[in-house]
Amino acid sequence: MTTLNLGMVGAGRIGQVHAANLAARVPGARLVAIADIAFEAAQKLAGQYNVSHAYDNPEAILDDPAIDAVIVASATDTHPAIIEGAAAAGKHIFCEKPIARSLAEIDGALTAVDKAGVKLQIGFNRRFDANFARVRRAIVDGEIGQPHLLHIISRDPGPPPLSYIRVSGGIFLDMTIHDFDMARFLLGSEVVEVYTSGAVLVDPAIGEAGDIDTALVLLTFASGALGVIDNSRRAVYGYDQRVEILGSGGAIQTENKYPNAAIISTGDHIRRDLPLHFFLERYADSFALELAQFVEAVVHDRPTPVTGEDGRIPVVMALAAAKSLHEKRPVRLDEIAPV
Amino acid sequence: MTTLNLGMVGAGRIGQVHAANLAARVPGARLVAIADIAFEAAQKLAGQYNVSHAYDNPEAILDDPAIDAVIVASATDTHPAIIEGAAAAGKHIFCEKPIARSLAEIDGALTAVDKAGVKLQIGFNRRFDANFARVRRAIVDGEIGQPHLLHIISRDPGPPPLSYIRVSGGIFLDMTIHDFDMARFLLGSEVVEVYTSGAVLVDPAIGEAGDIDTALVLLTFASGALGVIDNSRRAVYGYDQRVEILGSGGAIQTENKYPNAAIISTGDHIRRDLPLHFFLERYADSFALELAQFVEAVVHDRPTPVTGEDGRIPVVMALAAAKSLHEKRPVRLDEIAPV
Amino acid sequence: MTTLNLGMVGAGRIGQVHAANLAARVPGARLVAIADIAFEAAQKLAGQYNVSHAYDNPEAILDDPAIDAVIVASATDTHPAIIEGAAAAGKHIFCEKPIARSLAEIDGALTAVDKAGVKLQIGFNRRFDANFARVRRAIVDGEIGQPHLLHIISRDPGPPPLSYIRVSGGIFLDMTIHDFDMARFLLGSEVVEVYTSGAVLVDPAIGEAGDIDTALVLLTFASGALGVIDNSRRAVYGYDQRVEILGSGGAIQTENKYPNAAIISTGDHIRRDLPLHFFLERYADSFALELAQFVEAVVHDRPTPVTGEDGRIPVVMALAAAKSLHEKRPVRLDEIAPV
Amino acid sequence: MTTLNLGMVGAGRIGQVHAANLAARVPGARLVAIADIAFEAAQKLAGQYNVSHAYDNPEAILDDPAIDAVIVASATDTHPAIIEGAAAAGKHIFCEKPIARSLAEIDGALTAVDKAGVKLQIGFNRRFDANFARVRRAIVDGEIGQPHLLHIISRDPGPPPLSYIRVSGGIFLDMTIHDFDMARFLLGSEVVEVYTSGAVLVDPAIGEAGDIDTALVLLTFASGALGVIDNSRRAVYGYDQRVEILGSGGAIQTENKYPNAAIISTGDHIRRDLPLHFFLERYADSFALELAQFVEAVVHDRPTPVTGEDGRIPVVMALAAAKSLHEKRPVRLDEIAPV
Repeated sequence: MTTLNLGMVGAGRIGQVHAANLAARVPGARLVAIADIAFEAAQKLAGQYNVSHAYDNPEAILDDPAIDAVIVASATDTHPAIIEGAAAAGKHIFCEKPIARSLAEIDGALTAVDKAGVKLQIGFNRRFDANFARVRRAIVDGEIGQPHLLHIISRDPGPPPLSYIRVSGGIFLDMTIHDFDMARFLLGSEVVEVYTSGAVLVDPAIGEAGDIDTALVLLTFASGALGVIDNSRRAVYGYDQRVEILGSGGAIQTENKYPNAAIISTGDHIRRDLPLHFFLERYADSFALELAQFVEAVVHDRPTPVTGEDGRIPVVMALAAAKSLHEKRPVRLDEIAPV
Repeated sequence: MTTLNLGMVGAGRIGQVHAANLAARVPGARLVAIADIAFEAAQKLAGQYNVSHAYDNPEAILDDPAIDAVIVASATDTHPAIIEGAAAAGKHIFCEKPIARSLAEIDGALTAVDKAGVKLQIGFNRRFDANFARVRRAIVDGEIGQPHLLHIISRDPGPPPLSYIRVSGGIFLDMTIHDFDMARFLLGSEVVEVYTSGAVLVDPAIGEAGDIDTALVLLTFASGALGVIDNSRRAVYGYDQRVEILGSGGAIQTENKYPNAAIISTGDHIRRDLPLHFFLERYADSFALELAQFVEAVVHDRPTPVTGEDGRIPVVMALAAAKSLHEKRPVRLDEIAPV
Repeated sequence: MTTLNLGMVGAGRIGQVHAANLAARVPGARLVAIADIAFEAAQKLAGQYNVSHAYDNPEAILDDPAIDAVIVASATDTHPAIIEGAAAAGKHIFCEKPIARSLAEIDGALTAVDKAGVKLQIGFNRRFDANFARVRRAIVDGEIGQPHLLHIISRDPGPPPLSYIRVSGGIFLDMTIHDFDMARFLLGSEVVEVYTSGAVLVDPAIGEAGDIDTALVLLTFASGALGVIDNSRRAVYGYDQRVEILGSGGAIQTENKYPNAAIISTGDHIRRDLPLHFFLERYADSFALELAQFVEAVVHDRPTPVTGEDGRIPVVMALAAAKSLHEKRPVRLDEIAPV
Repeated sequence: MTTLNLGMVGAGRIGQVHAANLAARVPGARLVAIADIAFEAAQKLAGQYNVSHAYDNPEAILDDPAIDAVIVASATDTHPAIIEGAAAAGKHIFCEKPIARSLAEIDGALTAVDKAGVKLQIGFNRRFDANFARVRRAIVDGEIGQPHLLHIISRDPGPPPLSYIRVSGGIFLDMTIHDFDMARFLLGSEVVEVYTSGAVLVDPAIGEAGDIDTALVLLTFASGALGVIDNSRRAVYGYDQRVEILGSGGAIQTENKYPNAAIISTGDHIRRDLPLHFFLERYADSFALELAQFVEAVVHDRPTPVTGEDGRIPVVMALAAAKSLHEKRPVRLDEIAPV
């Protein structure tokens, strides 16, 4: 297989990122079709990157025998059906997170994938970020010994629209889910229990919509390590994405990414510009890299770097975190589902 | 009153720090007597700093009418009796933390102080550290708006001897107590509930001695803010003392203190020397400053900057943290005692 | 003009960079032909990026009426003839630095460009680097007032092959020339005098080849500001590219670029990974940006951001620096040529 | 000799620093007399630190057989006579820099010291600063190999009064002299030639007073290394004192010292407080350390860490720098005096 032909379902914000990366930064891949129920969006994106076909439905992609793999970048509630359809059609799948909002749907989709024997990769792009990949490498290489304590700081520059918050499944499913993935990825150990403390401090309307905007989630790992995730829907200085691990032999911590490294000294203070504002800028390279590795995994018939199970467990963690917040007690993951 | 005459009980490690500071860095104060049941230690320290009297018992200091104030730097279990004796003798008191290990003793001592109308300051020196004082000033001045999330990283370079751990009252009373004080000092809001996650990861012998060596303590503040304290008995790179606060209008974070600011670039990496190793070096300036402010408070008849209540509440927090760890549930402070 | 058709002469290292950027990161441009006297290199590069034509001579590009603009990425000694040919053919020109090694050739080429009325941009890519562009913006916006003192640190990770050094025209023409451009770009003022101090400290063979490997070049600007360029052929920790300006109202300084922002603490030291190793990694974004701005300048008929004069003056500065080193005295630029 | 008895001539700004340090931070020393032609200043300072005697003339100190050593902290033009008097009286000498403003006076004073066989230390306190001492240690230990390039950044927060500038001997003698000492101290190699570029950019009145306020001084070392000193009379952000050395095996650079390590993030930028404002704060520790080492050198009959020759050579460098500025050419130090 010299070039991998891909079809993409979804021409929204993240679909646009994938289309741009496939055009320029993913060797060995060609995007040949884009489908979106908003047909004009599909057409426009296809035109922009010389993609041959634009459709208003995913079936056109699933039915095209020339397409080797499908990128699922549509709304979350459409994921399971598209995954199952793609699996049935024998196409490999790259699916945005979360796979679905219910474990039943996820399990159904994963079963279909397993049965079909196609490859599945979940879009946890942060694993491919240079900072977090470096942290993971430090753990794997033993640079800091056995991990004892983990901090994940993960704050958005501002809350999403209330309309989104009302349907997103809550902060744990729409925001913390990335941090849940990061926690188990970085430490290489599963979380067995969570305890959640949450508050509405950013905007009361978020509370009225049934969600929280500020959270600390304690994690207990199977390895014995402890961790904490710090989430806020609003850090006025921009996107704040850092991790820190204390190990038996040292510690590693990461800084944010900045548009430049200039330091300005005035009569008032020493200052620098704000960090890269949000995830599209901050994680630009990681979006390219995750697709490149998906293409490599398919082309060379290797396991994908983020499996279906990697997509399922963070959802279990999110459900446990929500239960802990609601019941004000530590919740074991196996209370939610076998993991 | 031109010069304040002080007597000190305790000629151990922290007593030596106070004696040196009184000789050189605390204007308007004169240390005139040192008492220690290890009489030779009292004699040696007195000789070193031209202190007129050395005694083998605290009563000699309490009985001396020329002494205006007493520094209590002896073993914790001796604190209550000395405080009560000093109060009865009408002497002002600077007492090392914790005031005592039981709330009953603390309440007894504080009642005696109140009744006598003398001043009492507790040795929470970290409040006087340039970094933490700067953080407090940022909160007071509204530089970062209303606090939402607090992180305190507080790790020792290595565990104390097991003999100490067996009698210290546990990690929350001997180590976290400083962080409990820091939490309420920095945010200017009381903690209403704690949840503790702990582990023995540094040394199994610590667990066998009935203590833990690694902990995350979640804090819920009356203001609605959330916080987490990260404790480890061993950070191999040295004493790690940082805080970070996210507020509605920004964030503030502090770095460790280093012996120098030199950066060395080699063919292997970019590096700097380790931070100041432990509390005597790191907090050297804060020990001088707390005594200077105590002396000023007494001389100018102003409230001390760290009151008896400031000494009592962290003990309540420590007891709540221990109860939470033991019962594996969030514990409100008012379950322990009225605060 | 919807899409700009470009031909490129030179399929070497920098030509490969331009071809990749034209394929992916330069909107509105299409590379349609590549010429190289090493025909196979041209063919291979053309194949890699779907470029229609590969040639073994530049004339084929100059003769093609469908080509709007030419990228000159061949050996320096071929630049003048290609520029003049392109100008005669009415094609716009993007030329790598230096334009040529002799002022006579440069003046001939610039006269041809002027006469033909085509656009010319010189490949001083560092102007488009995020750090240096930020410094320039600080000066333009008056963030640090009037510039007084400039430092440019510009060190390579290792010396080029001696074969290159023997023909490069010397350190000032092959390496410092970028810094000469940076100096006048950042300050927005011309240099009127230079004084050079040089040494052979890295490798005696470089001295035997008639060059130096370590230099400090003092600059006097027309504005009255003073500057110094620090060059070394070898910094073992990698590519070191920083600037610092003191102004009447403050200062600005830049740091190097790093592959990640992770800090690792061990029992030995606090460390981070080495900076990006050399110019291809460090200046990757600036190479894309300079071409994008060239294309925009041509398409919208605006002046190019780096003019022919911007290409000529650094050569005058290089010749003055060499003369100063040789004669051990300050040399005014107008001793070399009118500027 | 158990305790060293010192007398000090000069109760001005630097004398006050020395008196405070002798009281508290210099073990084994006792300041027993202070002389100042402004007698009240001597009296006041003596009172502040329990110094037994205050005089209005230096002779009273030189004549007192109980005094072992003299600190010369009076105006520069009084240094030679006091040094010679102290030497004649067999007293060891700690003298502020510069020893004198003319080489003839310096040579006379040094001859007297040699003849008398007393110890002499010059007050180049920066050698004892933790940052610069660390840099020196890196060189001595070979951490960065053989030094190739040195940068010294040395900028004051603001110019001294014009009245001072008119009599100080010029920027090279009153300001750069510290950097000249630092250059030869750090590299452990003598400077053989200087070239100076200077300007009046801060305040025209400084130019009218016959001085400059902005300078770059190129240094050529006997070892072959090159260096540059960057001086400005005004950095609005405060005292800027940094060095950087590139060596064959790496590089070392230092940062300024800050009152705290807090970083504040707002919606506008990431900022920190300004560095310590001026030399009294920045070099506070180094002033204590230089005296402690002087006392140790005397008590244990060891060479002082900053000799008379160390005081003389920077004056030769200053004279060469001034000559270079005036004659607009490189000047070898041996044109000024044998070194």
